[in-house]
Amino acid sequence: MRVTLLGFGVVARSFAEVVMSEGPKLAKEYGLKPKIVGIVDSHGAAFDKNGLDLAKALESKSKLGTLAGLDGSYHEGMDGVHAIRETECEVVVETTPTELKRGEPGLSHVKTAMIKGRHVVCTNKGPLAIAMPALIELAHHNEVVFKFSGTVGGGTPVLDFAKRCLEGSEIRGIRGILNGTSNYILTRMAAEGVSMKDALADAQRLGYAEADPTYDVEGLDTACKLVITSNYVLDSALSIKDVDIRGITKVTGADVADASSKGETIKLIGSVGSKAKVSPERVKLTHPLNVSGTFNAICFDTHPSGEVTLVGKGAGGPETATSVVRDLIDIRRAFAR
Amino acid sequence: MRVTLLGFGVVARSFAEVVMSEGPKLAKEYGLKPKIVGIVDSHGAAFDKNGLDLAKALESKSKLGTLAGLDGSYHEGMDGVHAIRETECEVVVETTPTELKRGEPGLSHVKTAMIKGRHVVCTNKGPLAIAMPALIELAHHNEVVFKFSGTVGGGTPVLDFAKRCLEGSEIRGIRGILNGTSNYILTRMAAEGVSMKDALADAQRLGYAEADPTYDVEGLDTACKLVITSNYVLDSALSIKDVDIRGITKVTGADVADASSKGETIKLIGSVGSKAKVSPERVKLTHPLNVSGTFNAICFDTHPSGEVTLVGKGAGGPETATSVVRDLIDIRRAFAR
Repeated sequence: MRVTLLGFGVVARSFAEVVMSEGPKLAKEYGLKPKIVGIVDSHGAAFDKNGLDLAKALESKSKLGTLAGLDGSYHEGMDGVHAIRETECEVVVETTPTELKRGEPGLSHVKTAMIKGRHVVCTNKGPLAIAMPALIELAHHNEVVFKFSGTVGGGTPVLDFAKRCLEGSEIRGIRGILNGTSNYILTRMAAEGVSMKDALADAQRLGYAEADPTYDVEGLDTACKLVITSNYVLDSALSIKDVDIRGITKVTGADVADASSKGETIKLIGSVGSKAKVSPERVKLTHPLNVSGTFNAICFDTHPSGEVTLVGKGAGGPETATSVVRDLIDIRRAFAR
Repeated sequence: MRVTLLGFGVVARSFAEVVMSEGPKLAKEYGLKPKIVGIVDSHGAAFDKNGLDLAKALESKSKLGTLAGLDGSYHEGMDGVHAIRETECEVVVETTPTELKRGEPGLSHVKTAMIKGRHVVCTNKGPLAIAMPALIELAHHNEVVFKFSGTVGGGTPVLDFAKRCLEGSEIRGIRGILNGTSNYILTRMAAEGVSMKDALADAQRLGYAEADPTYDVEGLDTACKLVITSNYVLDSALSIKDVDIRGITKVTGADVADASSKGETIKLIGSVGSKAKVSPERVKLTHPLNVSGTFNAICFDTHPSGEVTLVGKGAGGPETATSVVRDLIDIRRAFAR
């Protein structure tokens, strides 16, 4: 299976490491033999139809910040759309950063790949938050497989769980803690009484939050994941514009203390029932959604089995790379039929 | 799909109700049309190759305690093995009570059904705790499908989750709270300082515990579920005899209070890593396994995605009936191929 990687950040590099270290196991257990024939970052693109040297690519990125170390394979300044058009492959893996105004450059990458007949694995939430129904339609039209497990829950298989394991039950609603940074901040506020400002500074120091934490604390990251989950699991056709979004920035220490005195805690909850919204909500301390630190948790209200909650890490390079691997295994199965 | 029900207790009656109320939906969404051609309880058996009148069967069981109300279809005193041999059907659903000395009568029911070429759905833990590797072998040999989703987690799809959603990750260990009664008792002891005796009495009053709570509080129920999960998910070949089992009966209020003072709580944990065991263990209050009341929770230690925990109700008639439905959907798919 020939694969082109769009973006060469934490997730794509972790994936490259998995391909190197777990290759024989993936081949043996799942018949999966990914060959990376193209890598594109914001500076340029490298191709080799015989497979790029991944160790060299990782070393180049680490030392030079670009793929220039791949010598003859490297094309300085070539962009993703151009690279997708130039490269023969079966699967495009899109891992560029989430951008929520126009979903770019991910949206153009995904569209171009589908139009070229490539299967797509996407860990970038932007294209899905903005245009998921259209992209699913485009995938159908071009008869390609479109997978995006890594967009929700990182390595925790939230989407597959809901789709594959809850058959025969009716899902009446979804509530989730889908952003680790916000949850870390609220957990520190509740457990230790630290201020939001200090908790955020710690989150940044520990690498949980970006220098610009807007997506996390303003609820946008949660809203993206909610849109993707709802569309996938409940067959809705939402975009991020359809979600009422309120982040955690106005939650005060007094709010947290008041909740605590009533056996509750405040969590940033993305929910979809009659409508889709993101807002700080009170959760009982004894409820399975009351998870600590950077954990994510998602609760499916099913009938008649009641609430089923899945808890795991919601992010991380190696974790999200496992979701890319799962998606490739699924694509390989679709091929094999 | 012709189905014979072995046992007509809470789970089988809930299943019959689902077939009546959800029939059109199951047919439309999954092509599943279960026709109940036989029902056997401890008093006798009823057959009708055109499908039994389920409303009448439920009414008879409720009013008479037997299936005698099914008139011409009823055979007083006929046992399960005999009934399986007499009835033409595709699937046998075994729901008789768990018995852990010899696994009977469930074990004979399952074996007889497989030898007759029937697919088997089993919600009874006894046959699996005692002879799971042999039964899986027997199913292969007879080319029948053997499903038992309802034995672990009730309606919470624990087994399917591990098998279907954690592909590409290595599962390094499993730890679970698999018995709602024990967890209810330990939760009450920790939260309110009530004695084990009083908490157990309340559990019995509320219908969470049987009059004889031995299976629950002595850890046997947990051990059964651990064996089934380990064999299914990790391809081990355990029976309940291979598990070190210690229940909660020696946990004191002082133990619980001491754990609490250290930010921990005591839970009855079934675990499998280098060995399989059931024992009261300390769990951090902030860990996702710290679930309250009758909830069950199971934590898979995966590499590299870290701990993934699934939380839900672990028992209940309507809940476990949904797992029977899921298993029948899977069997129907295997047919359809």
